[in-house]
Amino acid sequence: MNDVTSTEAERHRAKMEKRKTVQDAEVASKTVEKGLLIVHTGAGKGKSTAAFGLALRTLGHGARVGVVQFIKGAWHSAERDALETFGDRVAWYTMGEGFTWETQDLARDIASARRAWEQACALMADPSIGLVILDELNIALRYDYLPLDEVIATLQARRKGLHVAITGRNAKPALVEAADLVTEMTLVKHHFKAGVKAQKGIEF
Amino acid sequence: MNDVTSTEAERHRAKMEKRKTVQDAEVASKTVEKGLLIVHTGAGKGKSTAAFGLALRTLGHGARVGVVQFIKGAWHSAERDALETFGDRVAWYTMGEGFTWETQDLARDIASARRAWEQACALMADPSIGLVILDELNIALRYDYLPLDEVIATLQARRKGLHVAITGRNAKPALVEAADLVTEMTLVKHHFKAGVKAQKGIEF
Repeated sequence: MNDVTSTEAERHRAKMEKRKTVQDAEVASKTVEKGLLIVHTGAGKGKSTAAFGLALRTLGHGARVGVVQFIKGAWHSAERDALETFGDRVAWYTMGEGFTWETQDLARDIASARRAWEQACALMADPSIGLVILDELNIALRYDYLPLDEVIATLQARRKGLHVAITGRNAKPALVEAADLVTEMTLVKHHFKAGVKAQKGIEF
Repeated sequence: MNDVTSTEAERHRAKMEKRKTVQDAEVASKTVEKGLLIVHTGAGKGKSTAAFGLALRTLGHGARVGVVQFIKGAWHSAERDALETFGDRVAWYTMGEGFTWETQDLARDIASARRAWEQACALMADPSIGLVILDELNIALRYDYLPLDEVIATLQARRKGLHVAITGRNAKPALVEAADLVTEMTLVKHHFKAGVKAQKGIEF
């Protein structure tokens, strides 16, 4: 199959030429510039990881990145260790005290969500920052630790040009409605099912 | 809603205590250690971005990362610029010559896929590397630029402990079968639909 006949080659060329015309017209039809409100949700892996990948992209363009972790505590910090290489170009705040089933304390969870949200607002107001990652904000919203209307109104009133990426399962429909870009990470297959434990470099 | 009554607080605590028991049992039941074969597929955004997020995690643990881009050419290099901060801890190879509808040349696409695969094999053999990202390999497999059986057999015979992350739409069913962890990035909502163009920090 690695031997290409001239008929195949020509058919491929014609098909791809046509596709390029469609693609170029598509690209030309998009003209709006804006900072995006991005949501990564779903039961699959990659929600936070893709947000940290976006951080790399922003850093590659020379802007600063802000990160607020709403739920996670000390756990899972290898990305943070790596991002420390960028010095003060990454402002990272771990405000959560762990999963809700670890704290088992509703009032404490609400108080830490509120502190995290205040930190998020400060980062969104900082003009040196091009991307703010609100990691696991969806969890805080799902458990009603924060008032949804207030959060959405503040997100919508953000600085022009600022990208905000929100992660966590069970994104609220009103947040999905307000967002520009929503991806659901769908679990197709997970190694935990096969008895494989959390692996260094993957889960932590 | 931010005022917690003692009944609510107790109900929450009891529920979360129960959840923690389930969670701890789950974690304890996983014992296998292995390098994972990971696939990010689907029409949504975040497939490559999540793979680059995993790169951060690997770098945070002190291991090296190898990247081979099978399809993309010079386009989209802000992640690469950012990862260059890590010096020779990231080995990055852009082997593709652009999208198939840009090259319009089947024989050339096959030849560049083959060169990319040889580079991938060299990285997988390098014991200093903890994660190899095969970006858009799914596209090369979908167009039969590479023999699927050979690719899967080589991936399955990889070094113990090596994580490999493969990205691209339309992952072949046999590859999904062989993988440990498969996430489908599902498109829920995309700003292109609203006429918003590719944004710095998001698409490039």
